[in-house]
Amino acid sequence: MNSTQTKQTSVPHIVIVGGGFGGLYAAKSLKDAPVKVTLIDKRNFHLFQPLLYQVATGTLSPADIASPLRVVLSKHKNTKVLLDKVIDIDPEAKKVFLEDRDALDYDALIVATGVSHHYFGNEHWQDDAPGLKTVEDALEMRRRIFMAFEAAEKEPDPEKRQALLNFVVVGGGPTGVELAGAIAEICHQSVKDDFRDIDTTQAKVLLFEGMERILPPYPEESSAQAQKALEKLGVEVQTKTLVTNIADNSVTFRQGEETKTINAHTILWAAGVKASFMGKVLADRTGAELDRAGRVMVEPDLSLKNYSDIFVIGDLANFAHQGDRPLPGVAPVAMKEGEYVAKLIMQRAEGKTMAPFAYQDFGSMAVIGQNKAVANLNIGRFSGFIAWIIWVFAHIYYLIEFDNKLIVMIQWAWNYITLGRGARLITEKSSLQLEIEPPERSDKTATKPQEPVSV
Amino acid sequence: MNSTQTKQTSVPHIVIVGGGFGGLYAAKSLKDAPVKVTLIDKRNFHLFQPLLYQVATGTLSPADIASPLRVVLSKHKNTKVLLDKVIDIDPEAKKVFLEDRDALDYDALIVATGVSHHYFGNEHWQDDAPGLKTVEDALEMRRRIFMAFEAAEKEPDPEKRQALLNFVVVGGGPTGVELAGAIAEICHQSVKDDFRDIDTTQAKVLLFEGMERILPPYPEESSAQAQKALEKLGVEVQTKTLVTNIADNSVTFRQGEETKTINAHTILWAAGVKASFMGKVLADRTGAELDRAGRVMVEPDLSLKNYSDIFVIGDLANFAHQGDRPLPGVAPVAMKEGEYVAKLIMQRAEGKTMAPFAYQDFGSMAVIGQNKAVANLNIGRFSGFIAWIIWVFAHIYYLIEFDNKLIVMIQWAWNYITLGRGARLITEKSSLQLEIEPPERSDKTATKPQEPVSV
Repeated sequence: MNSTQTKQTSVPHIVIVGGGFGGLYAAKSLKDAPVKVTLIDKRNFHLFQPLLYQVATGTLSPADIASPLRVVLSKHKNTKVLLDKVIDIDPEAKKVFLEDRDALDYDALIVATGVSHHYFGNEHWQDDAPGLKTVEDALEMRRRIFMAFEAAEKEPDPEKRQALLNFVVVGGGPTGVELAGAIAEICHQSVKDDFRDIDTTQAKVLLFEGMERILPPYPEESSAQAQKALEKLGVEVQTKTLVTNIADNSVTFRQGEETKTINAHTILWAAGVKASFMGKVLADRTGAELDRAGRVMVEPDLSLKNYSDIFVIGDLANFAHQGDRPLPGVAPVAMKEGEYVAKLIMQRAEGKTMAPFAYQDFGSMAVIGQNKAVANLNIGRFSGFIAWIIWVFAHIYYLIEFDNKLIVMIQWAWNYITLGRGARLITEKSSLQLEIEPPERSDKTATKPQEPVSV
Repeated sequence: MNSTQTKQTSVPHIVIVGGGFGGLYAAKSLKDAPVKVTLIDKRNFHLFQPLLYQVATGTLSPADIASPLRVVLSKHKNTKVLLDKVIDIDPEAKKVFLEDRDALDYDALIVATGVSHHYFGNEHWQDDAPGLKTVEDALEMRRRIFMAFEAAEKEPDPEKRQALLNFVVVGGGPTGVELAGAIAEICHQSVKDDFRDIDTTQAKVLLFEGMERILPPYPEESSAQAQKALEKLGVEVQTKTLVTNIADNSVTFRQGEETKTINAHTILWAAGVKASFMGKVLADRTGAELDRAGRVMVEPDLSLKNYSDIFVIGDLANFAHQGDRPLPGVAPVAMKEGEYVAKLIMQRAEGKTMAPFAYQDFGSMAVIGQNKAVANLNIGRFSGFIAWIIWVFAHIYYLIEFDNKLIVMIQWAWNYITLGRGARLITEKSSLQLEIEPPERSDKTATKPQEPVSV
């Protein structure tokens, strides 16, 4: 009954696992190719993850940065979208095994399932310090951030009240910087006039980074500018700070020889990522080598050693053939890799070969707040308003292919004018369970120090 | 420590319970009055409920129709918003008891806590046929509607597949009509080109109504026009239909002497409302009379018999002093009642009296689909495009006071041009639990027939 299988006997069948930037751009590049394409994702939408932190901080709604995969690909008559989960593969029989359906045969397999949070062996910290990967993660962060002010407003005890107004962001990479900056803006601008018993400008926003400066992969100049801008917004930047424990609404951290603890009800995790489930599957079935974070080491053409018909792209891939460190886990890399693999598959079909993958890096950007950002581009380094404008237009540009650009632009313009946050509603984790107070913390202990950040 | 109590010794303290249309407009009308106002709500936002069905059907995001109460009232320096829940009152001591805080003393109490779903004694139907009152309700409906197509796409068995494509809306009031019309548009327009193995135009959308016509409170002409428009969209309207059981993804219903059952994975409840918890509290504490739905019978000035300092407004109130039936539970009535009570309290403070409350009804409207609506106004009856335009502008007008108007207008325009639905993402009920398949139904039975609709 599996129509994909019956159809794909005629033309080559390309199976893509994951509808993120890598998988989606591979599919887009195959639109008019003489192949059958099957894109498998366990969610029904592509998520524009670079703006997920704006959902977490109440500027955007999930739908503003989520595009239904079926809509994005509806004009691709050779492409089928399956809402399903890959549970295993057989590289010899060239089969992909699914949770809800019969196995699929492939002629070429593109794996782009990305990464998830990494707590470096302290996975039990997750409840106390949620990370930011999914829409649900973002809504949970939003709920905790805005609920903290509500809980503080009704807290008579000054000490407990301050703990409710302490926000700790763990990890000084782009996500951590963006979250800390946005939370500081919330405290000092958005909600400043909305409470009667608390002064939200008394809130403490701390950004913890393990290495000696935030945005470690960036040039020192950008890191310094970012730190200066964050401090101007009211963020306390703490570098060379290793988190050793998170429990009971408190964070214990080591700075040099000193170990300190701060009480904070809102603790957000932006400190590390680890490969998704498919990484292990590929290692087990193909003998592919994994790096420390579980990412798959790929050949110069993004295929697997000994399996030239299996490709790994995006955050899940460790491409170590360019520069002195692997390519960064960012959207532009994933998109270029997706386009390259699609092209390579077509070239091969025509008996042609292609030069190894090479990424032309246009640089990296991180936004700190309204009209504050750092942009380290190959055309030059920018900071402040210019960098922010570049950042805005770069993101609008990427959103153009989806259906959300217009709304997001309006939202941005609107929030920029009003300094407000339209998406501040606190919604429940479950439609059955109503939490007025932040969830109770259970006593947990752990001593393993946090490893250096690798956001 | 309760600053409200200390402050309110000087000026009268008005306590408002509920931040819906009634409570919010009461608070707005007291902006410059020489009183202390405390608005209590268990949510941190006002919900523009008339458009909630558009969240449920993927046109709008929750934040588009939710306005943070603190933002709406931040300029009201005499007003304090409490995120809390009223658990009891003492009308003799003039005290309101809260879940998280010390009791509040009031000089005047305005109760506007609205209504919730009513399953007429079949509360166990709720899991199988969710109603539409909260943001969480809407997101759950959205999840079920769009997940049904995904499940159908992967269902090989034709019979099961059709069951997944059967949508039953119970209740032919405005909400039921709006839901059924929107779902029909989704099947025949929005998702039509997005699937490869199913033809979404084969979906069945049924609207069940207990009485002999939909929109019972409307003139027969409007009901007929609405039914015609719905049928044109592909909705099967079944009147004189009493639901006798909902279980195992099936609906059993009686038409005359016949009893039938239809298998449908998506069953939505729009058939009735019952008073919220505060109705019973008021009855117990003040001896107030309740109607069949648990709504509080109020005096001509919206106060309670024997308790002239307690007012009930909005959907929770049964105002039977005008016309042959109680005022309808719609936003305009609640707003006018809120304004009236605010004015009355001020007049009394000056020793003046006021004429009883009188509602000037401008008429009622229901939208059936894109450019299809019925409007039964005192200036005349309209249907089709004109009625739809009236409906759009009436809603825009009400949204003006909040911060969502702009976005909602853009969304509407955008969806109108693209016939698309930007907010189609399927999100989880809980960030911890992932449901690919619709939830399993447990076997439930009930025989109590559904009572006539009173949406």
